[in-house]
Amino acid sequence: MEKMGVAVIGLGNRGQLLLKTVLKHFKDFQVVALSDLYEDRLQKGIAACEKYGEYQPLYADTNYKNFISKPEIDCVIVPSSWDSHIEICIDSMNAGKYVASEVGGAYNIEQCFDLVKTYERTGVPCMMLENCCYGKDEMLVLNMVKKGLFGEILHCEGGYHHDLRDEVALGHEQRHYRLDNYMHRNGEVYPTHELGPIAKVLNINRGNRMIMLTAMASKSGAVNQWIKDNKGADYENANFHFAMGDVITTCIKCAHGETIVLTHDTTIPRAYSRGGLVQGTKGTWSEDCDGILIDGMVEGASYDHKFLPMKDFYEEHMHPLWKEYKKNGLVGGHGGMDGLCLAAFFDAVRNKTEVPIDAYDMASWMAITCLSEDSIAMGSMPVPIPDFTYGKWIKRKPYVRSKYCLEEVCYDCFDEEEK
Amino acid sequence: MEKMGVAVIGLGNRGQLLLKTVLKHFKDFQVVALSDLYEDRLQKGIAACEKYGEYQPLYADTNYKNFISKPEIDCVIVPSSWDSHIEICIDSMNAGKYVASEVGGAYNIEQCFDLVKTYERTGVPCMMLENCCYGKDEMLVLNMVKKGLFGEILHCEGGYHHDLRDEVALGHEQRHYRLDNYMHRNGEVYPTHELGPIAKVLNINRGNRMIMLTAMASKSGAVNQWIKDNKGADYENANFHFAMGDVITTCIKCAHGETIVLTHDTTIPRAYSRGGLVQGTKGTWSEDCDGILIDGMVEGASYDHKFLPMKDFYEEHMHPLWKEYKKNGLVGGHGGMDGLCLAAFFDAVRNKTEVPIDAYDMASWMAITCLSEDSIAMGSMPVPIPDFTYGKWIKRKPYVRSKYCLEEVCYDCFDEEEK
Repeated sequence: MEKMGVAVIGLGNRGQLLLKTVLKHFKDFQVVALSDLYEDRLQKGIAACEKYGEYQPLYADTNYKNFISKPEIDCVIVPSSWDSHIEICIDSMNAGKYVASEVGGAYNIEQCFDLVKTYERTGVPCMMLENCCYGKDEMLVLNMVKKGLFGEILHCEGGYHHDLRDEVALGHEQRHYRLDNYMHRNGEVYPTHELGPIAKVLNINRGNRMIMLTAMASKSGAVNQWIKDNKGADYENANFHFAMGDVITTCIKCAHGETIVLTHDTTIPRAYSRGGLVQGTKGTWSEDCDGILIDGMVEGASYDHKFLPMKDFYEEHMHPLWKEYKKNGLVGGHGGMDGLCLAAFFDAVRNKTEVPIDAYDMASWMAITCLSEDSIAMGSMPVPIPDFTYGKWIKRKPYVRSKYCLEEVCYDCFDEEEK
Repeated sequence: MEKMGVAVIGLGNRGQLLLKTVLKHFKDFQVVALSDLYEDRLQKGIAACEKYGEYQPLYADTNYKNFISKPEIDCVIVPSSWDSHIEICIDSMNAGKYVASEVGGAYNIEQCFDLVKTYERTGVPCMMLENCCYGKDEMLVLNMVKKGLFGEILHCEGGYHHDLRDEVALGHEQRHYRLDNYMHRNGEVYPTHELGPIAKVLNINRGNRMIMLTAMASKSGAVNQWIKDNKGADYENANFHFAMGDVITTCIKCAHGETIVLTHDTTIPRAYSRGGLVQGTKGTWSEDCDGILIDGMVEGASYDHKFLPMKDFYEEHMHPLWKEYKKNGLVGGHGGMDGLCLAAFFDAVRNKTEVPIDAYDMASWMAITCLSEDSIAMGSMPVPIPDFTYGKWIKRKPYVRSKYCLEEVCYDCFDEEEK
């Protein structure tokens, strides 16, 4: 069997983790090219190939443009810094390579349109590796939504609640892109972990779309406090006025009247949560309450206003993809969702099909970042969200070509056992 | 001892419960006057006086204006429908009677200013009976905030998450004011259960104020669904298009940069929650996660990003008022906070002092309702929040004249045991 060639561009912490997952678990793919702006990271990537793949990549270059068009490369994975995702994706599509980008937000609307236009011109699929779309609980809820158990969906929420103060504060030491973004920008810079699964619940870009948002930022102060407490008052940026508010709240309205609330909350001491909430006319899922309540499912539960714990739903309503995945063995980081998300991309590369999270999704999800910055800059004014599909969202059908699809559950793709 | 006279105006479910609490637990007060628009409710109130107070009220009238100025009345309690609160409060102050209003929202800004101006002209205190300000967990968190444990406060959230579909849908049968409001209005109609405690955390009207908000409404559908499922497709309003969205999200900005997010969520199946969240530079309280995390309080907890359960904080940080209250015995509904809130009002009446939730608080909290309607009507445009103190918020100090005060903890008011 001839292996398919993968290039990995961006070899920071996230890149190294994804690289290792590819090397260890996707044996019909071979990492043929590596790139990072830093030589030491490049060497670390080469060493990983030698260790886990028992080979050296054909290309290792600080400038990916030197190898992007090489015929040995079938697809590209982009775990680089936020500001380079779209540029690398566009270069990859122009070179005819399937491309999968790590998550992040856009810096302006224009680059989102550039992404879509490049996809439309080249016809080369571009996927966002939004691993949380393949999270166990997110897929459980998606499955229950698509079964109609929540009724008509009305409102969803999500948040990136993750205390990253050390990563932000020590950004210069760790060469981490978060620091610069937090110093200079004020907006929902990391929307997709929550928005991705919500967008699939709400059929965004396939019969629905996000039309408008407002955003509001709290003052900032928590990073300064952390630096002073942990590194002293003379440490770099101890007294720098960070542009980014510690909590950013973004409210989004959809074409069919549903609302979405996103929260960016990454510099305050707290437990991790993605704050998932899905509410329909017949039920609610709340991640933080660890519960689901569906009208009529359990005698008296609606009358008593009682959530049932998530675990009570796994047996009957687990998404068939997760049933199969658990049976075959979870791989990769973040509870297995990294591996499942990569599997979805590689499945499309192998079969030369479309990808389940495509350029339209990527453009519209990433656009929330720069639009939230605009709204905050203008005192929380509502700002319109462009239609990145050029009208096609009205007639686009759910993507149901593979078992990895995220709009409808493609039961035909699974064995009897998983259905 | 001569008892002080109380009038209760409004004798629906809430009024009957408060009346009973007064009759049973505040023996130095005597209910001397009752009013309700409905004769049957009036009779039920009289029966309660006979049963629990062993006396008949001096006045029982469907029109409170017929007795409001009577000298036997020292104070007035107003658990009437939302649209009459401010009018009755104004009439009471004009008659020289201390007045306490049940919670609700305003219909326009003008009536909020009328309330404040009447208070300023008459000098008669007017309190909002926001029982949640006296909730056990809310007071625990307030106490910890005032001790400085959360650092500088950055962001707060709260929600009225309460499945009231039956109350809304059966409003005509039950003569409940919610139905009419939900049929015709679209806004955060019930903000104060969450906003009250948050406002006290953020020193609103005493060194801080709310300056601006945006609001967004989801579509509506859940009440129609409930009616069809429970009463049939021919029942009243089964196909009425309710103006009110099922979920309303309101984002508020404060003068010192703090943000507040309020959620109104009363027509979707789910468990009850007030969704409390307080976040500062040094810690977070999350009601739905049932947890608190304070930097440095527990070795390793910040590094591990772990909440500790609320119960772990009760012993050391319980508000002294609650320590005393628990020792002496909880009274009234809603886990005792009804009784504590009434006690705060009666304490001011007895001692002829100011009230801990005053006319400025009431006006600014209630104004969120009509301002959220304005924002939603204008596509989530930001709207300014007036300064109901006429500039006095800048220099107003925390109210620390009684143990019931909610800005600072008045340790001098308590025995050694509670401190």
